[in-house]
Amino acid sequence: MTRIAYVDGAYLPFDQAGVHIEDRGYQFADGVYEVFALIDGQMLDVEAHLERLDLSLQKINLASPVSKSALLVILKETIRANNIKDGLVYMQITRGRAARNHAYPVTPQPVLSVTVRPINETHRRHVAEAGIKVISIEDQRWKRCDIKSISLLPNVMAKQAAVEAGAQEAWMIDGEGFVTEGASTTAWIVDKAGKLRTRPLANDILDGITRQMLLSLINELKLELDEVPFTLDEAYSSKEAFSTASSLIVMPVVDIDGHEIGNGKPGKITTQLIHNYKISNN
Amino acid sequence: MTRIAYVDGAYLPFDQAGVHIEDRGYQFADGVYEVFALIDGQMLDVEAHLERLDLSLQKINLASPVSKSALLVILKETIRANNIKDGLVYMQITRGRAARNHAYPVTPQPVLSVTVRPINETHRRHVAEAGIKVISIEDQRWKRCDIKSISLLPNVMAKQAAVEAGAQEAWMIDGEGFVTEGASTTAWIVDKAGKLRTRPLANDILDGITRQMLLSLINELKLELDEVPFTLDEAYSSKEAFSTASSLIVMPVVDIDGHEIGNGKPGKITTQLIHNYKISNN
Repeated sequence: MTRIAYVDGAYLPFDQAGVHIEDRGYQFADGVYEVFALIDGQMLDVEAHLERLDLSLQKINLASPVSKSALLVILKETIRANNIKDGLVYMQITRGRAARNHAYPVTPQPVLSVTVRPINETHRRHVAEAGIKVISIEDQRWKRCDIKSISLLPNVMAKQAAVEAGAQEAWMIDGEGFVTEGASTTAWIVDKAGKLRTRPLANDILDGITRQMLLSLINELKLELDEVPFTLDEAYSSKEAFSTASSLIVMPVVDIDGHEIGNGKPGKITTQLIHNYKISNN
Repeated sequence: MTRIAYVDGAYLPFDQAGVHIEDRGYQFADGVYEVFALIDGQMLDVEAHLERLDLSLQKINLASPVSKSALLVILKETIRANNIKDGLVYMQITRGRAARNHAYPVTPQPVLSVTVRPINETHRRHVAEAGIKVISIEDQRWKRCDIKSISLLPNVMAKQAAVEAGAQEAWMIDGEGFVTEGASTTAWIVDKAGKLRTRPLANDILDGITRQMLLSLINELKLELDEVPFTLDEAYSSKEAFSTASSLIVMPVVDIDGHEIGNGKPGKITTQLIHNYKISNN
């Protein structure tokens, strides 16, 4: 079966899915994106993703080239054309092609692209059971990490540093020694007092969709939570730690910079959250 | 005459110059670039630009897909094919196409693209004579502005703010009230004491090629210079101000946030630098 991508109005064989070199996404990182999981044919938390996409677009003063209902049709058609039931859906909107000039073009022609790829459900289960290793790294990103932009070079460099250290994620540390978030995940701990901790929303972190959903779940389960920043030292000495993202949902963290977390296995609360995360009510 | 672009080994009609949507330049801003001026057929400061390109590539651990001598051939051939004598040459190297994943691909296939476009010499002269208006804006960029990366959304947003305010450039202000640099230029003043001032090199600004060349020229002309940061207030009350970039070389600044600089016309030292900037010894 031919893999299909949607690009700017057309469904194309994947190898032919291209954009112009003067697309502002390519020369200026002038665009935003979303990724969500497809689980047994269900688009996980898709409404929340589309809402956040809208917010990101507003923050960079870009109008979507398609309506929300049209976008939903495009997403479903791209998924259908690729015949994928379990996977990741990626969508990106850039300010489109324009003669290179920093300021926005007067009449932008935004470009939407959508891809879908299978994800190995065994891999997700393996991560949930084995956990991941994390390194810490200075947060070198810009001051508007609330915008889910494609200006991702700092995140890429942080993730690469993690991989080179034999880890799977990098947690970024602000100027005061507090963890902001992971290179592509939200950071959480269960602190010494047994309370869940995650950084409150501001311009320095992304409003993670899995974070949103998990906050509701934590409330339902009546678990104790403080939306209060935690330091790297607090992370080292935490009872449990985990990272969340739309791709792999809840990933137990069993090692930070060589410090074993808990007993080096996914913690009790982490495991409870994994098992209770609702993946079907979309 | 058909406009031509070079992309990944091929000289293509401009409209067909495309890259794959999974080029890491498009999804991660994982790439670096250079722009230089073409003046009367001469590639202005091209050696310095190629050297900086090399440094940027090293800083993001990316190997060029072509040797320096091959790159020079490609640049000259692209210029020749477009039959342009006065213009701007743009080149970009990204980490190329790979299945979307933050960490670097194990065997990256970097993509080089080159474009050339004419620049109106009358426009450059007009800017040198009339000067430009500048606004100040918070520097929201990442901590590695020494890398000339395509991760430019903050710069784009700053430049757009300038345009919307009726200005041509935005000078960015750090957390301590000092000017870092412009959205796409280096910032300079002639302070109250008559000394040239520009920020010293560090990770928070780009090592501008025009900046490099101007430092030599200032030395030759025996003008007084302090490579010492200046505040926005010092800029407001400066005798002269200007921005430099490879595209328009030296641009007199005649207004910052509505504060007229000097008498609202290009200053004496600024004009001297414009007239003495060597554009032929490459």
